[in-house]
Amino acid sequence: MAPNDDQFQARDAYSRAGVDINAGNAAVARYRDVLGSWRHPKQLDAIGGFGGLFELPGDGEKALVASTDGVGTKILIAAELQQYDGVGRDLVNHCVNDILVVNATPLFFLDYFATGKLDPEVAAAVVAGCANACRAHNCALLGGETAEMPGLYAPGHFDLAGTIVGIVDRKDVPKPETIVAGDAIIGLPAIGLHTNGYSLARAVLPRESWPALLTEHPSYFTEVRAIQKVANVKTMSHITGGGLLENVPRTLAPGVKAIFEQARWSVPEIMREIVERGNLSVEERYRTLNMGIGYTMVVPLGDAPAAIAAVPGARVVGWIENRVGDEAQVVVHPAR
Amino acid sequence: MAPNDDQFQARDAYSRAGVDINAGNAAVARYRDVLGSWRHPKQLDAIGGFGGLFELPGDGEKALVASTDGVGTKILIAAELQQYDGVGRDLVNHCVNDILVVNATPLFFLDYFATGKLDPEVAAAVVAGCANACRAHNCALLGGETAEMPGLYAPGHFDLAGTIVGIVDRKDVPKPETIVAGDAIIGLPAIGLHTNGYSLARAVLPRESWPALLTEHPSYFTEVRAIQKVANVKTMSHITGGGLLENVPRTLAPGVKAIFEQARWSVPEIMREIVERGNLSVEERYRTLNMGIGYTMVVPLGDAPAAIAAVPGARVVGWIENRVGDEAQVVVHPAR
Repeated sequence: MAPNDDQFQARDAYSRAGVDINAGNAAVARYRDVLGSWRHPKQLDAIGGFGGLFELPGDGEKALVASTDGVGTKILIAAELQQYDGVGRDLVNHCVNDILVVNATPLFFLDYFATGKLDPEVAAAVVAGCANACRAHNCALLGGETAEMPGLYAPGHFDLAGTIVGIVDRKDVPKPETIVAGDAIIGLPAIGLHTNGYSLARAVLPRESWPALLTEHPSYFTEVRAIQKVANVKTMSHITGGGLLENVPRTLAPGVKAIFEQARWSVPEIMREIVERGNLSVEERYRTLNMGIGYTMVVPLGDAPAAIAAVPGARVVGWIENRVGDEAQVVVHPAR
Repeated sequence: MAPNDDQFQARDAYSRAGVDINAGNAAVARYRDVLGSWRHPKQLDAIGGFGGLFELPGDGEKALVASTDGVGTKILIAAELQQYDGVGRDLVNHCVNDILVVNATPLFFLDYFATGKLDPEVAAAVVAGCANACRAHNCALLGGETAEMPGLYAPGHFDLAGTIVGIVDRKDVPKPETIVAGDAIIGLPAIGLHTNGYSLARAVLPRESWPALLTEHPSYFTEVRAIQKVANVKTMSHITGGGLLENVPRTLAPGVKAIFEQARWSVPEIMREIVERGNLSVEERYRTLNMGIGYTMVVPLGDAPAAIAAVPGARVVGWIENRVGDEAQVVVHPAR
């Protein structure tokens, strides 16, 4: 029941762009009401809500991990620029990263493509993007739904969502309680907005800048597995809507906080432009955009050198401190 | 990659209502091109495309069965009439029935709810409908996505899709090759349009008739399991978009055909009205609407009496004959 990226955005910046964060939070609260206390006995505790866990039938030591996501309003830019194959890869990679937070390896994926007037070439381009990204992860594209719904989507518009199912050994599910003060936070670079911040970007950027907005949402699967070979990765976060401020706490224990030092990484040009044109406060920047970090991993300080040596672009972007009372759980020191 | 309900509709009736069946077929053909020949080694042959099969990790004798579906343009009627909880049940029940064709029992479900301006009460009503139908099937509502996408959906509009994952013993996957001439076809009654034919219904029915269109898409899970206890059910079909004419052949062997005799069941009033106002040909009726049959099962003739005695409303609606050459695989004898 995690709300989508857009709902975790900065209140001010996003309400200016037409997305109501309060409505998102209210919806999540209402979901808790309507879902009540019933839970399937094989449903397991999830960490951070990036994916739902369900005991693997026949093997209580393993779990299936599932996540549904959409591409958000990046879809409107793809439609406007008539560039369709990228959004399929964006979607699959986004889903792969979400269940990777739980340490899951993808098994299969299903897509949902809905449009007002079906153009077979557009649909095929979108599905081809999904298929390519699935194959890159040895993940089956097991099915999908193509819906033509006149009256719901405007001409040329479409929506795209998908569901991924992966598998994890339950002993390998990350344990936030193992994090201690002094641990390092490794960041993997973001190469663009990925799949969040698009309602804001469309509102503040001139149309000439739009092509840069379609930069692909990368998968971090290979990089994370490489780092796990040389470092004890305690928890991870996929930096989607909500940015560092709202995603990192999802996989932290309540007794610790994460300190980021922005001078340690560079902010992509497109984000600098959005910050400037949107006149975003520091708080808004790190809650609305990924600001150049796509994925984070908490490792013991002693493992950090090996971790960053294992993957080009990986770097130490912050560290863990003890948290007192209700202190903010993420602090970002902006670069001067 | 099965196209949605609407794409399998009657060419004439549906193109009048704005849905292009040729585009749907072209999209499916293009999917085959872009998917190429690669297939995950654990992906299994599916029958009829109602659900995708993937070998259960650790147990080669079982399979996970997954399906993604949407509610189609029934959503527009729900939005117009501001009745939101039914579509969640419609969606889950539709998905349950789809994987039931492969004989799968639901494990978990995830929803995708997308809207232009998020109204927490509407979202909660939709999700509550999903949750209720999941619980009725002892199926976990494992996650979901709520997307607010200004610019993609008109005010008051929303879309709803979902993905279900179930499990089946591979030996229990229905075998179309066991069907022989003389087998009976058991039908379970449809109680409305379920989730297909809505673009057509909106085009031909006056608004006063719309409330009747929201009649729930029922689950046939309990009924099918009851009949399976007393009869050898060889194959099944979920009668969604495409009606009897396009769904029944999906789970028939090429050497047989299904003969339906419409005098054996009654057509719901709302469908009679659509047929009359839309001036649908016999062909169009049985390709566009379920015409009163929601689910079919092929059983040996000798098992038919026990089958229909096991479930109120179940009846023999047709039988199997040998098929010669490229004869139509479904024939419906309309009632006089």
